[in-house]
Amino acid sequence: MPELRKDPITGRWVIISTDRAKRPTDFSRDSVDIKGNGFCPFCYGNESKTPPEILAYGRNGSGPNTPGWSVRVVPNKFPALGIEGELDRQGEGLFDKMNGIGAHEVIIETPDHRITLANLHEKGIEEVLWAYRERMNDLKNDRRFRYVLIFKNHGEAAGASLEHTHSQLIALPIVPKRVREEVDSAARYFQEKERCIFCDMIRQELATADRIIAENERFVALAPYAPRFPFETWLLPKSHSSAFENNDAPVYANLAGLLKDLLLRLDAVLNRPAYNYIIHTSPVGEEINEHYHWHIEMMPKLTKVAGFEWGTGFYINPTPPEESARFLREAQL
Amino acid sequence: MPELRKDPITGRWVIISTDRAKRPTDFSRDSVDIKGNGFCPFCYGNESKTPPEILAYGRNGSGPNTPGWSVRVVPNKFPALGIEGELDRQGEGLFDKMNGIGAHEVIIETPDHRITLANLHEKGIEEVLWAYRERMNDLKNDRRFRYVLIFKNHGEAAGASLEHTHSQLIALPIVPKRVREEVDSAARYFQEKERCIFCDMIRQELATADRIIAENERFVALAPYAPRFPFETWLLPKSHSSAFENNDAPVYANLAGLLKDLLLRLDAVLNRPAYNYIIHTSPVGEEINEHYHWHIEMMPKLTKVAGFEWGTGFYINPTPPEESARFLREAQL
Repeated sequence: MPELRKDPITGRWVIISTDRAKRPTDFSRDSVDIKGNGFCPFCYGNESKTPPEILAYGRNGSGPNTPGWSVRVVPNKFPALGIEGELDRQGEGLFDKMNGIGAHEVIIETPDHRITLANLHEKGIEEVLWAYRERMNDLKNDRRFRYVLIFKNHGEAAGASLEHTHSQLIALPIVPKRVREEVDSAARYFQEKERCIFCDMIRQELATADRIIAENERFVALAPYAPRFPFETWLLPKSHSSAFENNDAPVYANLAGLLKDLLLRLDAVLNRPAYNYIIHTSPVGEEINEHYHWHIEMMPKLTKVAGFEWGTGFYINPTPPEESARFLREAQL
Repeated sequence: MPELRKDPITGRWVIISTDRAKRPTDFSRDSVDIKGNGFCPFCYGNESKTPPEILAYGRNGSGPNTPGWSVRVVPNKFPALGIEGELDRQGEGLFDKMNGIGAHEVIIETPDHRITLANLHEKGIEEVLWAYRERMNDLKNDRRFRYVLIFKNHGEAAGASLEHTHSQLIALPIVPKRVREEVDSAARYFQEKERCIFCDMIRQELATADRIIAENERFVALAPYAPRFPFETWLLPKSHSSAFENNDAPVYANLAGLLKDLLLRLDAVLNRPAYNYIIHTSPVGEEINEHYHWHIEMMPKLTKVAGFEWGTGFYINPTPPEESARFLREAQL
């Protein structure tokens, strides 16, 4: 019998379709392989082919926009939003609009074209997390922005248009709808119980352990109770923390460790899948609060999304999270 | 300069990315072609290969599960939900679950394997709409169900696993989150203004005409002001109507005409794209109301959805709706 499960944070119901239960090998799709042929604007020596860099780590004396960096942040060459100008909010009868003001940046995670984030050394991943943090904190000073979105598309099937491993940042003059709902729902829970709903969930998950994939001192990786997608995984700090960008050095070191561990598990169990991850953090100006708990949501790209899933916010997931967690937990690394 | 636009019904902001503006020919993808090779359980003579039929139109004396039908409805052979049993709602600590009870049916739109819905004659499309209606009304008698979802996946890229043209129906014991939000938002608007927000929108759209694609006596096809996807199109009744299934014969005849017209325009302009459509109608038990306006949302499958779009409810659309509406309006049929 399939099961209907409700995500306690978003209120979204999903079908966990046990009849059609799918093992990792049942998903037919291409592994992400790095071909490495052709010109790449993210490789050493091609620094002039991107817009001038905003940030770079690892340089030892060489000038900006030259080789020698370990992590490099540049504006997106084809930005979805423009950085210059006023918001100029306007109505059009029933409708609301404003200028498409925002930042759209690319975080080039390593100069090595052949490597994936999973295979980058832990210190390298930690540097990527520091670059996320530094760019977020800088953009939050721009009073036009309400949210800074960090995400990664890995593999063409997940929407990556260049194969050289990179993440993206979009700073927005609005709080995206899903984020607003998640934060507001957590705030309502806190109002009623004076506890963070994510803290409660983590406590329960660690106690039952069925959906735990891996953990270290400060972080836990788990399959959520009502996942939309097979092998959907969340990475959460064990102690309450409302914003990704407000943490101490040991937190990022710890996160780098568990992120690498999780990516290696996904690669092993799902044969190097395409994936997306998104950092869910508090909106600008609400960073310090007791109700919202920042985390990373990771979605391997294994299935096509059917039409009704777009229109309804209702999902059919062929892999129970207890199963996906077990596969990932027992992965041979 | 790109533009940020807000959908007045859902509150969702989207980027209309004029810098990257895309014309129909800029989307590289496969046309949907019917190959017609291999065994098909939806063709005449193979009726025994589906579960026993629930409904069939067009038979003239022949028995059930034999050839001679024009539209045939059967249970999905691999249903996402089970039809037998009690809901048995339960808590699991913080979490909520229930048995996966529901109906999952397939509406086979024509016995002709070679035809698409766009190319089916108007009377045939009208029969398909009647089958939707009849199945919805029947399932609404089952007190376990709160919503009946009708959708169509056309083409493999849109999630269709069989190429013989068909739609699907899923009856659910819950109201999907997105539907609940849409209905509640329309109810709040009505409470404030005593007008239907969709009626207001249709009036404004018909007056400005920029985003109108086609219309007939009772229906209008338009590109919404803040579409998530390029060439997203909505089909709405011009007069207020809160439920798809509560209409008179001339309404379905009219809808069949405009639906065919719209599908032919999409085929012409986008070179037979894969697409999804979903009927948005009022939940069971709230069918007659002044605030919600049923409609069909149609999404050609032209782009990959990036990671952050999943996690945020925030979309980047490279084609302004005024452009897509113009292309579809001016299509040579």
